[in-house]
Amino acid sequence: MNAKVRAALMTAFSKPLEIVEFPVPELESGSLIARIESAGICGSDLHIWHGRDPRIKCPVVIGHEGLGRIEAIGGEKKDLFGQPLKPGDRIIWERGLFCGKCYYCVMEKEPSLCVERRTYGMNAPTTHTSLVGNYAEAIYLFPQTNVIKLRESDKPEVYVSTSCSGATTAHSFELARPRVGDTVVVQGAGPIGLYAIAFAREAGAGTVVAVDMVEDRLRLAREFGADHLIDRKTTSIEEMVRTVKELTAGLGADFAVECSGAPESMEEGLKMIRRNGTYLVPGYASITRPINIDGLNDITNKQILIRGSWVSDTSHLFKAIQIVRKNKYPFDKMITHKFPLDDVNKALQALDRREAIKAALTP
Amino acid sequence: MNAKVRAALMTAFSKPLEIVEFPVPELESGSLIARIESAGICGSDLHIWHGRDPRIKCPVVIGHEGLGRIEAIGGEKKDLFGQPLKPGDRIIWERGLFCGKCYYCVMEKEPSLCVERRTYGMNAPTTHTSLVGNYAEAIYLFPQTNVIKLRESDKPEVYVSTSCSGATTAHSFELARPRVGDTVVVQGAGPIGLYAIAFAREAGAGTVVAVDMVEDRLRLAREFGADHLIDRKTTSIEEMVRTVKELTAGLGADFAVECSGAPESMEEGLKMIRRNGTYLVPGYASITRPINIDGLNDITNKQILIRGSWVSDTSHLFKAIQIVRKNKYPFDKMITHKFPLDDVNKALQALDRREAIKAALTP
Amino acid sequence: MNAKVRAALMTAFSKPLEIVEFPVPELESGSLIARIESAGICGSDLHIWHGRDPRIKCPVVIGHEGLGRIEAIGGEKKDLFGQPLKPGDRIIWERGLFCGKCYYCVMEKEPSLCVERRTYGMNAPTTHTSLVGNYAEAIYLFPQTNVIKLRESDKPEVYVSTSCSGATTAHSFELARPRVGDTVVVQGAGPIGLYAIAFAREAGAGTVVAVDMVEDRLRLAREFGADHLIDRKTTSIEEMVRTVKELTAGLGADFAVECSGAPESMEEGLKMIRRNGTYLVPGYASITRPINIDGLNDITNKQILIRGSWVSDTSHLFKAIQIVRKNKYPFDKMITHKFPLDDVNKALQALDRREAIKAALTP
Amino acid sequence: MNAKVRAALMTAFSKPLEIVEFPVPELESGSLIARIESAGICGSDLHIWHGRDPRIKCPVVIGHEGLGRIEAIGGEKKDLFGQPLKPGDRIIWERGLFCGKCYYCVMEKEPSLCVERRTYGMNAPTTHTSLVGNYAEAIYLFPQTNVIKLRESDKPEVYVSTSCSGATTAHSFELARPRVGDTVVVQGAGPIGLYAIAFAREAGAGTVVAVDMVEDRLRLAREFGADHLIDRKTTSIEEMVRTVKELTAGLGADFAVECSGAPESMEEGLKMIRRNGTYLVPGYASITRPINIDGLNDITNKQILIRGSWVSDTSHLFKAIQIVRKNKYPFDKMITHKFPLDDVNKALQALDRREAIKAALTP
Repeated sequence: MNAKVRAALMTAFSKPLEIVEFPVPELESGSLIARIESAGICGSDLHIWHGRDPRIKCPVVIGHEGLGRIEAIGGEKKDLFGQPLKPGDRIIWERGLFCGKCYYCVMEKEPSLCVERRTYGMNAPTTHTSLVGNYAEAIYLFPQTNVIKLRESDKPEVYVSTSCSGATTAHSFELARPRVGDTVVVQGAGPIGLYAIAFAREAGAGTVVAVDMVEDRLRLAREFGADHLIDRKTTSIEEMVRTVKELTAGLGADFAVECSGAPESMEEGLKMIRRNGTYLVPGYASITRPINIDGLNDITNKQILIRGSWVSDTSHLFKAIQIVRKNKYPFDKMITHKFPLDDVNKALQALDRREAIKAALTP
Repeated sequence: MNAKVRAALMTAFSKPLEIVEFPVPELESGSLIARIESAGICGSDLHIWHGRDPRIKCPVVIGHEGLGRIEAIGGEKKDLFGQPLKPGDRIIWERGLFCGKCYYCVMEKEPSLCVERRTYGMNAPTTHTSLVGNYAEAIYLFPQTNVIKLRESDKPEVYVSTSCSGATTAHSFELARPRVGDTVVVQGAGPIGLYAIAFAREAGAGTVVAVDMVEDRLRLAREFGADHLIDRKTTSIEEMVRTVKELTAGLGADFAVECSGAPESMEEGLKMIRRNGTYLVPGYASITRPINIDGLNDITNKQILIRGSWVSDTSHLFKAIQIVRKNKYPFDKMITHKFPLDDVNKALQALDRREAIKAALTP
Repeated sequence: MNAKVRAALMTAFSKPLEIVEFPVPELESGSLIARIESAGICGSDLHIWHGRDPRIKCPVVIGHEGLGRIEAIGGEKKDLFGQPLKPGDRIIWERGLFCGKCYYCVMEKEPSLCVERRTYGMNAPTTHTSLVGNYAEAIYLFPQTNVIKLRESDKPEVYVSTSCSGATTAHSFELARPRVGDTVVVQGAGPIGLYAIAFAREAGAGTVVAVDMVEDRLRLAREFGADHLIDRKTTSIEEMVRTVKELTAGLGADFAVECSGAPESMEEGLKMIRRNGTYLVPGYASITRPINIDGLNDITNKQILIRGSWVSDTSHLFKAIQIVRKNKYPFDKMITHKFPLDDVNKALQALDRREAIKAALTP
Repeated sequence: MNAKVRAALMTAFSKPLEIVEFPVPELESGSLIARIESAGICGSDLHIWHGRDPRIKCPVVIGHEGLGRIEAIGGEKKDLFGQPLKPGDRIIWERGLFCGKCYYCVMEKEPSLCVERRTYGMNAPTTHTSLVGNYAEAIYLFPQTNVIKLRESDKPEVYVSTSCSGATTAHSFELARPRVGDTVVVQGAGPIGLYAIAFAREAGAGTVVAVDMVEDRLRLAREFGADHLIDRKTTSIEEMVRTVKELTAGLGADFAVECSGAPESMEEGLKMIRRNGTYLVPGYASITRPINIDGLNDITNKQILIRGSWVSDTSHLFKAIQIVRKNKYPFDKMITHKFPLDDVNKALQALDRREAIKAALTP
């Protein structure tokens, strides 16, 4: 590697990122430097860019989804299965940094709720180096970061989405999952929704119904395994409920997943579910208005199970990798736009205009 | 038994019930007649009396909570544990009639959601006899009704509340229950709330916090095992949240149960729970306004589990009996007012004025 | 239907069954007569035929797996989803008769453990008619029997195995199921083992390993989705363990299912599983010797979950139908031998010689 | 603290331990030195002393259960709830050292199965200091060790058993726990058995049956809340089964826990459980012969759930502390023998002669 690493630095919100050179950091024992092969641009990166995420301070190298090859290791480091890692290995890394000591890490075993959780590309410590984001040629990974070795045949742009969208969805399906034969409604067919379709299929869902307002997304949802598509733009909630009931002998869906982030989505989702059904909610990353719920008909009488789910940890990253590795779902089509690092601002703008389902940088 | 049985007949909503004599019905195989020793007056009986429950049609003998002695049996009938029943046995009966054939009975094994569920004292079939409610000297029980044999030492007024309040709470705690050491908030200290305190204690709760607006109820909550009392009338939501956080090292409650029926209760309860906590909702029997939920902070980021729970079946009735039988909780104090059958209208009025925590008829 | 129905009557153990004519029984309300289109011959029918099942008394019409068309209904009867049934409908029926009143039916909601469970073709009551077995042109179904309506396109010989093998496997996978990506070992590739492969795949298993001693069965296991085949005849337990560890980064299988009935199977299976793994045991229907378990290494230190599972109820029958209906697995190849009713003795002999994976009668 | 710390060093198996002085080690960041107030002598210490545990090499300071006050901290360290620790605080520490990186730590979230798990007083690294066992005046705790702050009122000899016996039992009851009203059989009334009685009571058990061969243990089991005592020395398995069935309307126990370590215990326990019941097995730490199981009657037909459980992690330690803190169980009577550090050999001999239920050193 050159003595210098180029990275896209965000110096002010909503302003173009600047390509800056940083020195290669020293490696302490167990840390490593990875050369990035693919960096995903997550929907939340737009919130970050526009200053809507209070955790983020400028200047910062953003990008929390990344995948690449080991450039150098400080001493020895093993992957999840105890295999020693070596320079040149293709790897993917956990985007979160967990304390391992707090109530949520130790007692609940939910590192995603760690009270000191930090994220690469968001608020990882920069005392050592600024190279702790993925919009860059390389990233520094702290010793506590879990690393999973990929295969040479695992294509970077196919696996990079496991880092955030895939792992987040895996976490939610760990907390509640459909049964064999269930009718599952997936609301929102962006990256999380597409993973949700795949996880529902893997859980043995009988029928998957995908709801979205964008035709391209619905088309891709079909390719991921959705049996029925509902165009939310042209379908009333009454029609949606009727459609779902027709598919379920009048009962309603067994399971629904909120993947759109829209407040009305949960209101509608609860109406589509049958009694004793499950409503899974990994989708709310920000919210524009309160959601209105009918305590009798949506909750008590419906005997519903509602399960929120927040981000993910390394166990979920591995589960997302496992689902991609099955080669049953067109994850290669999820990333619709690719850009070189130098075009990072074009990439953000394309996403801002909602042209892409998902975009990635290939530094 | 006399050839005639006296019963309180509701002939019009919000009008005094009339004491009427009915002939003793014929017994088909497996059915029985029980002489009522105690009939509970449930909060929902007030809704029924005032015509707010669309399932109910006049004339009807109301009262869905009852307990008594077998007067006569049609052929042979066994209790849950295969013991033959005989006249004179003290028994309690399942208040619901289930079809045993529908999706919810067969596939979900949740008879409380049976699509043809009927309830004694509400909408049980009257083709055979009108004596299918508990505000009466005796009740006719259909062959499919499950019956549990009580002991001679089981006092009627102590056990009668297992029929509805106890069983409903048992059902909800089957669907989600606290862990040993958990801090549990019980919102509302009426019959369901008091049972919830007992079930939380039985599940090993470390600290139980009871919230109510009525001093007598809070006092009884204390006797049932609540460690902390919050008077909702004089405490703001901010203060409640602060109190709960002080009890939980700043985290929030592990578990909360909505037993009040008030819309603000769920809004407040979700704020009192920690991340990855559980919110159990057996409480909404009718609702006056939508509940406002923050999709990000109350659901996704909180990674919450919300569980609705609807009425109960015989398995829950038995669990409620088991908890009363421990003799650890002052269930003898739950029924604060007793009336003879002839004073049924005084009983309804007392409950209407909210003078009683729970009232019962002792025909 | 003719006034008479032909059926194969077992009059003595291990002797040829005799084709006898029985009168069509009277129909009480909710009962029905079905004309049998396919009757499965289960492995346990051989035990029955040879007098090894103490529940069975001669004379009896055996055969507990069946499927056909409604010939006549006593009054009205609905299917599981509330649809009225009518003559000519293709249906499948629950093979068990449950009391609906005992501890296991009511409290545990496990009708398969009902203390008064009876089975068509084994020990169903014959007070009404002898036509309560499936080796016949028609069967009488009691009012309490749950019936599921099939589609015209559902082929009898493809669906008949859901009745016993499919439902039994569904039950076990309800009690414990693999996670997405899990490595699952299926020991025994007869009908239950083949269903287990399908259920493992539907649960999202990453890798399925099938073990059997018969080449034809292993070949069919491959078609059902097994990734790796182990021929038990030529492979030592040490080699099996090594193979499984090689597939699992040295850990061992996440999940294994005993479907062979052989005592050594459980001994071997426990060695193939990793720590914290699951061992599911639907397979033991009779047993020839005790199983030897190492309390430290197989149980405590392994932190294993072992789950027995006994027969099934209607909810499992429906789940088995759902998995067949996916048309993803070659259930049409499971029944390798078909015979007319008149050749019932040839069928039993073929199975006795282990020529068939599964055989069926097509009366 | 003096410049030197006295500790009991095991230099050869089955030989007297020697009191040796060690220098106080340097503290790296996050590590600490604790002055020991109470060190429990675990049954497994006898196995270690006699050279029956292959993990242990001499010389070593043994003792894996300990509790005391902070003497010095390297930099800053917080307890589980984020409170900063300071010298003088009474604390208890996790006895296991986990890698936090392996499959079991990361994917299964079961640090007790960590592939690199080490234990203080057994095989903790001694590169830094030999003071990594609890039979000493003080212990060195590595930075990754989780520490829980106790209260001044928490008596050392009451809480020290949470470290191993309590945490191990807590782990097992996390993996499977009784329901309200269940009849629970506890086989073996040593430290794990007594904790099991307490955990069963906290889970709401209706009836607890304790089985042991030692009168003193049965007497203490009664004080912990056992309702029925069975003296294994004078009671046949047939009588035990009969007794349990009489207590359970003929069904058998809902739940049983193996806490004795004897092979016959599991054989007997499986007979005492009802169908669909649970058998929990934290008890086998070494084993003298294979256990014989009837695959049909003990497993498949019984539809049993068997759950092994191995040691514990910090979450379980905290749960054990929570149960002691309830002050409902006589944990002060569990430690029947106390010795000063200098009498460590007398302590081991007393335990070897089975005079004590549990012994502790009070350095």
